[in-house]
Amino acid sequence: MKINNKNYKTIWFNEKDASVGIIDQTKLPHSLEIISLKSLSDVIQAIKIMQVRGAPLIGGAAAYGIFLAMKDNPSDDNLALASKKLIESRPTAVNLKSSVDRMNSELKNIISKERFEASLQLAKTICLEDEECCKLIGLHGKKIIEQHIQDNNLDTINILTHCNAGWLATIDWGTATSPIYHAIKDGIKVHVWVDETRPRNQGASLTSYELTNEGIANTIISDNAGGLLMKEGKVDMCITGTDRVLSNGDVINKIGTYLKALAAYDNKIPFYVALPGTTIDMKNNKITSTMIEYRSSEELTHISGIDTKGNLKEVRIFPKDCNTLNPAFDITPSKLITGLITEKGVYDSSTSGLLKYHNDENKLN
Amino acid sequence: MKINNKNYKTIWFNEKDASVGIIDQTKLPHSLEIISLKSLSDVIQAIKIMQVRGAPLIGGAAAYGIFLAMKDNPSDDNLALASKKLIESRPTAVNLKSSVDRMNSELKNIISKERFEASLQLAKTICLEDEECCKLIGLHGKKIIEQHIQDNNLDTINILTHCNAGWLATIDWGTATSPIYHAIKDGIKVHVWVDETRPRNQGASLTSYELTNEGIANTIISDNAGGLLMKEGKVDMCITGTDRVLSNGDVINKIGTYLKALAAYDNKIPFYVALPGTTIDMKNNKITSTMIEYRSSEELTHISGIDTKGNLKEVRIFPKDCNTLNPAFDITPSKLITGLITEKGVYDSSTSGLLKYHNDENKLN
Repeated sequence: MKINNKNYKTIWFNEKDASVGIIDQTKLPHSLEIISLKSLSDVIQAIKIMQVRGAPLIGGAAAYGIFLAMKDNPSDDNLALASKKLIESRPTAVNLKSSVDRMNSELKNIISKERFEASLQLAKTICLEDEECCKLIGLHGKKIIEQHIQDNNLDTINILTHCNAGWLATIDWGTATSPIYHAIKDGIKVHVWVDETRPRNQGASLTSYELTNEGIANTIISDNAGGLLMKEGKVDMCITGTDRVLSNGDVINKIGTYLKALAAYDNKIPFYVALPGTTIDMKNNKITSTMIEYRSSEELTHISGIDTKGNLKEVRIFPKDCNTLNPAFDITPSKLITGLITEKGVYDSSTSGLLKYHNDENKLN
Repeated sequence: MKINNKNYKTIWFNEKDASVGIIDQTKLPHSLEIISLKSLSDVIQAIKIMQVRGAPLIGGAAAYGIFLAMKDNPSDDNLALASKKLIESRPTAVNLKSSVDRMNSELKNIISKERFEASLQLAKTICLEDEECCKLIGLHGKKIIEQHIQDNNLDTINILTHCNAGWLATIDWGTATSPIYHAIKDGIKVHVWVDETRPRNQGASLTSYELTNEGIANTIISDNAGGLLMKEGKVDMCITGTDRVLSNGDVINKIGTYLKALAAYDNKIPFYVALPGTTIDMKNNKITSTMIEYRSSEELTHISGIDTKGNLKEVRIFPKDCNTLNPAFDITPSKLITGLITEKGVYDSSTSGLLKYHNDENKLN
C-alpha cells in the first residue's frame, strides 16, 4: 500500500546485504523511518519494542528472524535457541509461534548448509501467503459491505475500527482494513471511524495514517466516543482484527474491543472480526492468564508527540508516582460477534463455525 | 479536601480584594496554581477553558460570576447581560443555568445598591448548599457500599469511576467520590479504578490526584481496560457522576460512561450514578443535539505533559491534518443504571424514581 504515494510492504528482504527491511512503526505517524534488521537480536528487539506489531506481521518477522539466525549459525542448537527466544519475545502472539513452528518443521529435515537458502525462501513464502490471505479476507469482507449497503440503502457506509489491523499490521492489505481497501477499489463510498486506541494510539498513529495515505475518508475519535456515535446511527458496521480466536468463537483482541462490541450489540450494528485462519486457537476455549499481556506503566503515563519546534518529544501526562495497570488485550464473547471474516469466507463465531472453517477447502494451498 | 496535606475547597471568596479564588484545574496534576477571578469575564474564561469544571462547581462559579458582575455594575441590564453571557459559556451545563436562574430570581426583587452584598451572600449560600448536598450524597452512597461489602463478603471493595466527579468537580466532597470518602472515614477498605478519561484525562489528572492526596488506593487504567477488569471480577461496583439526568432516568455524562455501563450490565456489576437533585432535568425525556457539546479537535490531537527537563510542554500526538470528532458527553440508558444516589437517598433511574425524588422531603431546606 502507499505512503506518500510510494508503494510499500511492511517487511522485505534486502538482496544487497541479506538483511531484512522494515518500517519502524514506533516512529509513525510523525516520520517514516526504514530500518535494516541484520540479526536475530535485531528482530527480537523490533518485536519487543513494537517496531513491528500486529499478529500477521509478527509472524512474518519471526520467520525472517529464524532466517537471520540461520544466516549466522545454521546448527540444530541455534535453530532451537532462536525459536525459543522468538516465542518468548511476545508470549501472547499465536502467529509468532505458528510461524516459528512452521520454520522448524520444514528446516529440521534440511541439512545445515542448506538452511540459509531454505529459511529465506520459507520466510518469503510465509509473507507472500499472508499477503494472499489478506487479499482473500478483503474480497470476502467486501461482499459483506456491498450487501449491507444494498440492504440498508446507504450512500456511504460508516465503518468503525479499533486499533490497527491494517496493512501495517500484516505484510500488505491488512485484515480489518482489507475489506475497506477492496470496497474502495470497487468504487464503494466508505468513511472510517478510527478509535485512537489508548494507550499506544495505534488507531490514530497507524490506521488513520494508512487510510489517509490511501486517500480514504476517516475520522479519529477517542476510545470513549464510539458508543455515542453508534447510538446516534453514525456507525453502520464495525470491523476489527484479532490476536487469537478461541475454539468457542470468543475473540481476544486489543484492549477495548469488548466495549465496542457491547455497544454494537446494544445498537444492533453488525460487528465483524477479520482474521487469517492462523489466528484460530482450537486448543483453548477459555482465556488464560498467559493470553493477556500486561505491558509497562510507561505506555500509559508517558506519550510522544511533536512539540511546537517540530521535534519528537516524550512527556509524562499522568501524576508522578501514580499506580497504573496496563492490560493489552481483552476478550469479546462470541455472542457479540456477527461473523468472522477469513480467507476462506465468513463464518459464525462458534465452535461449529470454526470447525466448518477447518473442514472447508483451503483456497490458499 | 486535602492537597499536599492542606485543606482546600474549589472556590472561595477573598475578603481582601473581593475577588474569587479558584484552583486552576487545567494545571493539575503537574502543578497547583491558585488564581483570582476579579470580573465576570474572568469567570467566563475560567468556565470556557475549564479552569473550573464539573457541573456543581460550574454552578458555584456562575453564582460568583453574577456577584462579580454586580460588583462592577448592579443594574438590571447588567444582571441580564451577565446571565446571558454565563449561560452561553457552556450551553450544556444544567447547573450553570439553574444557578444563574436562582441568582436572578432573588436579585431582581432587590434594589441595585443592595445587590453587591446580596449576590455575595447568595453565591456563598449556593456553594455551602452544594457542600452539604455532596456530603449527604456521600452518606447515602456509603450505605450502598457497606451493604455490597456485606452481601458479597468482601474485604476490599473495588470501585470503578469515570472522569472526575470528585471534590474538584464540586465545592467539596464530590458526587461520585463522596460515598468513597465517607466509606474510608468509616474504616471501609476501598480501592478505586480510575478511567483516564480521554481526551482531557480528568480521571488521571484530577480523580487519581485527589484520591492520592487523600491517601486512598487507586489505579489509573486506560478507558479501554474497564471491560476486561469487570469480566475478570476485579470491579465490584461502578459510581460515576452526571451532567444531566433526563426525566426518563437516562443519564448524560462524560463521553465513555455508556460503554462502562454496558460492560457493568453484561457482568452483573451494580452501576450507580451520584448527583445533586439540581442535575435532574424533568423537562426532557430525550437527548437533543444541544445537550452534546462538541469540543475542539485540539483536545484530541494535542496533549500536555512534563518533559524530561521538568517543564510542562504541549505535543501533537496525532498525524498532521487528520480529521477528528470530539463529542464530550454520551447518554446512558436508564436500563443500565442500578440507582441514582442523591442527597435525599437512592432512587430508581426512571420517571417514577425521579417523581419520588421530587415528592420526597428535601432535607436541605
